[in-house]
Amino acid sequence: MPHIKLPENAPGIIGPMLAYPHTDGHLNALAQALLRDPSSSLAPAEREMIATFVSSGNECYFCTQCHAAAARELYGGASGIVDQVLDEVRTAPVSERMKALLTIADKVRRDGRLVSLTDIERARTAGADDRAIHDTVLIAAAFCMYNRYVDGLATWTPREPAVYKEIGERLAARGYQSNAV
Amino acid sequence: MPHIKLPENAPGIIGPMLAYPHTDGHLNALAQALLRDPSSSLAPAEREMIATFVSSGNECYFCTQCHAAAARELYGGASGIVDQVLDEVRTAPVSERMKALLTIADKVRRDGRLVSLTDIERARTAGADDRAIHDTVLIAAAFCMYNRYVDGLATWTPREPAVYKEIGERLAARGYQSNAV
Repeated sequence: MPHIKLPENAPGIIGPMLAYPHTDGHLNALAQALLRDPSSSLAPAEREMIATFVSSGNECYFCTQCHAAAARELYGGASGIVDQVLDEVRTAPVSERMKALLTIADKVRRDGRLVSLTDIERARTAGADDRAIHDTVLIAAAFCMYNRYVDGLATWTPREPAVYKEIGERLAARGYQSNAV
Repeated sequence: MPHIKLPENAPGIIGPMLAYPHTDGHLNALAQALLRDPSSSLAPAEREMIATFVSSGNECYFCTQCHAAAARELYGGASGIVDQVLDEVRTAPVSERMKALLTIADKVRRDGRLVSLTDIERARTAGADDRAIHDTVLIAAAFCMYNRYVDGLATWTPREPAVYKEIGERLAARGYQSNAV
């Protein structure tokens, strides 16, 4: 049972987004800018992977499943990559740049002050530009918000994989729209 | 030195907000909705107090000082309350409702799943409605984002109290506007 009254049959963040329109639009617009803005030097698939990785680190089941499903769609034929990253980043078949950015994201998730010059230099050496580092830090920070919003209200968490596959397909095809996740 | 190139003389979150307009507007609009929307059952002073308390728990110096200064302005003649809350909530001269909501905010800050039915019942008994609980959870979650954005990029942190007094006065008078904190 959620801690406050929320619409029935609206899983995870969708419940409070429907019930509280004064913040819904801004939360969706921020997600759209972070995960889809075409001016980023990171692909939408890579940004969804960062969102998934942070949500998994925070053990937010709803967010992890939704964004893993979106990332699998966006990685297309290489969708197995998502589960390999969640299983063990070091041996997963992603670029050195991505591994360095995921390391930064995990430190931001725990405490922003943990990010070291060495972490930043490793990412730059592997090809990350300022925009990639900025977007990684803000995606990681933002998912520390979305994860806490979902879990702090004890929102409804379906366990059926089909629910998340459908959400992931929608997020991959249409992005983040107010009240229309 | 910040981890990425940011405008000089722009302290804390203002640097990346100026440099990255694709997210700046959404971050400010979310703060304005959370901390100033007139339909909340919490006063702007109370919401700035929650933001300050969470930022202090996360040890984000810039956010703590800015929002403490804004809260002092909004509490007006009772501005000493802010430092009493930061020093020791249990004995601070705030309502039982506020103490219960600050307890929830601190749990959300650490991990959303820590919020218990007992915490929620305590807040309700003290007069908190669904909107107050919702806003407390989302303010706490959002400051876990803002704090990490500021510290994860190693932004410039002035130490002069006058800087924060001026920011607090502006936030109290004008709220959160894109590129105009």
